[in-house]
Amino acid sequence: MRDSIGAMLLERLRQCGVSRIYGVPGDYNLEFLELIERTPGICFIGACNELNAAYAADGDARLSGIGAVLVTYGVGDLSALSAVAGACAEGVPVVVISGMPPLHAVQSRALVHHTLADGDYDNVMTCYRQFTAATTRLHPASAVAETDRVLHAVRVARRPVYIQFPSDICYVEIETPPPVPPSQASDPALLEKAATCLTRRIAQAARPVVLVDAMVRQYDLQAQVRRLCERYDIPYAALSTGRTLLAESGPLWLGQYGGMASAAGVADHVHASDCVIGLGVRFVDSTSGYFSQRIRPGALVDVQPFSLTCDGENIQGITAADLLDAVVSRAGDPSPARPARQVRPDEAVLSPPEGEAEAWAQAAFWRRMERFLQPDDVVVADNGSSMVAMLHARLPAQCSLLVQPVWAAIGYSLPAALGACLATPRRRHVLFIGDGSFQMTAQELSTLLRHRCNIVVFLINNGGYTIERMILGPQAAYNDIANWNYAALPAALAGDQAPLSVRVDSGEELEAALTRVAGHEGLAFVEIRFAPMDAPAGMAAMGQAVRRYDYGFATPDVP
Amino acid sequence: MRDSIGAMLLERLRQCGVSRIYGVPGDYNLEFLELIERTPGICFIGACNELNAAYAADGDARLSGIGAVLVTYGVGDLSALSAVAGACAEGVPVVVISGMPPLHAVQSRALVHHTLADGDYDNVMTCYRQFTAATTRLHPASAVAETDRVLHAVRVARRPVYIQFPSDICYVEIETPPPVPPSQASDPALLEKAATCLTRRIAQAARPVVLVDAMVRQYDLQAQVRRLCERYDIPYAALSTGRTLLAESGPLWLGQYGGMASAAGVADHVHASDCVIGLGVRFVDSTSGYFSQRIRPGALVDVQPFSLTCDGENIQGITAADLLDAVVSRAGDPSPARPARQVRPDEAVLSPPEGEAEAWAQAAFWRRMERFLQPDDVVVADNGSSMVAMLHARLPAQCSLLVQPVWAAIGYSLPAALGACLATPRRRHVLFIGDGSFQMTAQELSTLLRHRCNIVVFLINNGGYTIERMILGPQAAYNDIANWNYAALPAALAGDQAPLSVRVDSGEELEAALTRVAGHEGLAFVEIRFAPMDAPAGMAAMGQAVRRYDYGFATPDVP
Repeated sequence: MRDSIGAMLLERLRQCGVSRIYGVPGDYNLEFLELIERTPGICFIGACNELNAAYAADGDARLSGIGAVLVTYGVGDLSALSAVAGACAEGVPVVVISGMPPLHAVQSRALVHHTLADGDYDNVMTCYRQFTAATTRLHPASAVAETDRVLHAVRVARRPVYIQFPSDICYVEIETPPPVPPSQASDPALLEKAATCLTRRIAQAARPVVLVDAMVRQYDLQAQVRRLCERYDIPYAALSTGRTLLAESGPLWLGQYGGMASAAGVADHVHASDCVIGLGVRFVDSTSGYFSQRIRPGALVDVQPFSLTCDGENIQGITAADLLDAVVSRAGDPSPARPARQVRPDEAVLSPPEGEAEAWAQAAFWRRMERFLQPDDVVVADNGSSMVAMLHARLPAQCSLLVQPVWAAIGYSLPAALGACLATPRRRHVLFIGDGSFQMTAQELSTLLRHRCNIVVFLINNGGYTIERMILGPQAAYNDIANWNYAALPAALAGDQAPLSVRVDSGEELEAALTRVAGHEGLAFVEIRFAPMDAPAGMAAMGQAVRRYDYGFATPDVP
Repeated sequence: MRDSIGAMLLERLRQCGVSRIYGVPGDYNLEFLELIERTPGICFIGACNELNAAYAADGDARLSGIGAVLVTYGVGDLSALSAVAGACAEGVPVVVISGMPPLHAVQSRALVHHTLADGDYDNVMTCYRQFTAATTRLHPASAVAETDRVLHAVRVARRPVYIQFPSDICYVEIETPPPVPPSQASDPALLEKAATCLTRRIAQAARPVVLVDAMVRQYDLQAQVRRLCERYDIPYAALSTGRTLLAESGPLWLGQYGGMASAAGVADHVHASDCVIGLGVRFVDSTSGYFSQRIRPGALVDVQPFSLTCDGENIQGITAADLLDAVVSRAGDPSPARPARQVRPDEAVLSPPEGEAEAWAQAAFWRRMERFLQPDDVVVADNGSSMVAMLHARLPAQCSLLVQPVWAAIGYSLPAALGACLATPRRRHVLFIGDGSFQMTAQELSTLLRHRCNIVVFLINNGGYTIERMILGPQAAYNDIANWNYAALPAALAGDQAPLSVRVDSGEELEAALTRVAGHEGLAFVEIRFAPMDAPAGMAAMGQAVRRYDYGFATPDVP
């Protein structure tokens, strides 16, 4: 059949699962926007700026499986780039479409706005090439093949891809054959070899353990991993980048693993294991307690999306999904007997020490939040205090936690929560964000209001960048920020709505606020005020580790 | 002498004229921030996010001569990149300093946060290389030489430069010889040749004209250009990128030139000239009425920062400053007789047609603003309606107009106004910004309040992206944005201050608001509401030109 290039791209995006495209209109993408507006099953969600749009696409993709963002050339591309790099760092599939100047301008190297006006049309592409799995510039002669190549890459690599779409070819008609479905089948002989290797390794192990990382979300391996653990009776822990992908309760759940920053008892378990099955594991400073993972030599079995490394041998040509399926199918029944495991401490880390008075402080707040959260909630926590607290909290069943510990951009969470709300509108969303993070991307609160999102926003106001104060400059002016009247902001950003907004300075006020929140539909905003150096458990130790790593011993510890 | 690398960098920045560094703290730049806080004569200005910080540095540099911004690696770098590219496109010298992970991490390719966690420490540098005149990564073995090289480049190219500063070497002591002052002297023989060529060309010309572009600001050539025009009796026009650099009154001032988008009478004058002395002129779509410049063949004499092209010959090895000085020194006295010039129309374009009733609309508002503006004001106008209106307005004497027509990023103006306010705190600042632009970077209003800036903000609320509606989709939902309660925002973002904020829906309300503004110290905020398709003169024609250029004839004109 024949269709326009714009319609072909939209249709193929839909086939990839895209139903929402976040973005900002610009003079080079208006024709494509016109087309989106006329196409059923796909809609445009305008954001206040491109960085926020791309964060929203990231948040959406983490729950829906794929995200998309539409920007205009140059100004939009580069504004979105940090968020796209974040999606790349964290393994989030986002399709970035850039409406670019018309082909005649590109070909004649015309000096147009949104460029350096030097005839260079390659510099933006060079930037995107650094942070994506594939890039292309569409042209009528190759639009279908290039679109299919790039959309194949996003499904294989599960990281962002980038499409430059010249403004003057949206309505050009071309021949559009149906897309060839991507093939990721494993080589049967290699799969057999890998499955044998992994199955034998598990059988020989006295104390196997599974480490869950982001790959399980990227490649939608939750069911396979659950079956693996159940059929072989293998306990599992999750890195901070792999939280809430598997059930965080039940006899096999160990807790969060991150070297010395692990939940109580988990590091001992993992470090004593003779068979650590890592599922896409990367030990990043922020996910490993600053590289304090102490896996026994030779214990790590490294399952990556398309390879297995086991007993010093690397096997390519397989997929993790096929490998897990094959290993599960070989499981005997009943599962092998294992030595009794140490019982996981039943108390979550945030539970109050017995007999301690509940003074108004972050510790008390986060403990209360453990009880506030409900099964099936989507929890989004920004980098800093909020993420540290949530990674140490016990989360209810079927809760999804969205955090960005690798790219670790403050301000990520608010626009990401927008994407989450639109991806899973029937779930309750809870956002925890500090004041410094909030100020980065605060305007997107208005889009949450505009779409009447079902979300409770907890704004942790502690007067600046507390996570930086923990590293250096606890009293330094550079870590101070302007103190907004945060609680007044929702009303200023709401159009015709009357959002619930309250300020909380004590435990009693918090209880009153939570009661009001419980009865509220739509967006509820709760500003919680703490002293600047009040922080959740673990922050001070983390700050000290960061300071040592970044600056050596030049500076004394923060008192 | 010996000094730490951090102190050396700060001292050399000061020698370049840097006294304010905008930015956001991050874990890799805290040591440098500590040093800034202890160093007299240089201060840190925290912004809400890095994009805004870099815009502020741009606005500062346009008035002070140089700007600086400090970010943290990856997240901060990429967030600031679009603003830095804008400074590059517009010729604004900004020094970007990125606190990056410690050298030991870089050298061991450690997987740290704020990177892709793949050991690649070159991708961010690759991006910055596209949009800067020079880049470097500091190392103790070469820190002085590299710093001097890069700071030499910013002074020569007058465009951004980029310095990666590993976190662990700030306090490393090194030998710090005094910097060698940059030499830009011309080759005497080539200068002689160029001056002869240009002087002869002027002498032979019947109707010479000077075209002022951004180079005059970049290289601080205002005095030389004024002398040139006066001594040789040459009238001058300015491109939109070169406005308010020379006096916009007096017998030699022609008006704005931009092809068919010129002020009345100016295009005829320039197109009839047999000697168009272009001072750094670039004809960009947005500054040339979409390439409608019609300079007579052979008439253009192209003076660039380090070259002259005249009568088909290109002469390198000179500087524009030396060339202008040499030509001025050769001027006879009195100036050569020229044929009488057509008298420039005395009425500014925005003046009301005689007898027309002043209905409440943008046209009336902008006419009123011509009278509101005062000599010595700094006017900042965002892309869209505000810039179009200001480029057509008659501006008072010694007024500075800050616009960004080449990079043309909406949202630029608000943070740029912060930089302008801090660069010239004794002047009154006036910002014109549309609602779509405002939402991009709105949070920086709080920093204007925090620093008690002397600024009047006119927020033009017309319910969305009117400049895009003029191109395509006049009624399209994608051009709508959330309608904030803008007038409530200053109070929400102010700490302990009570900013003046009013909403205006009529000419009478505008007069009342302007009276209150006149008596107010600090920030005054005026929200002005118009219908979505109400726009200043010139916008509809511009929209039509853009649509033709970008999309060809696929779509009908906007009714």
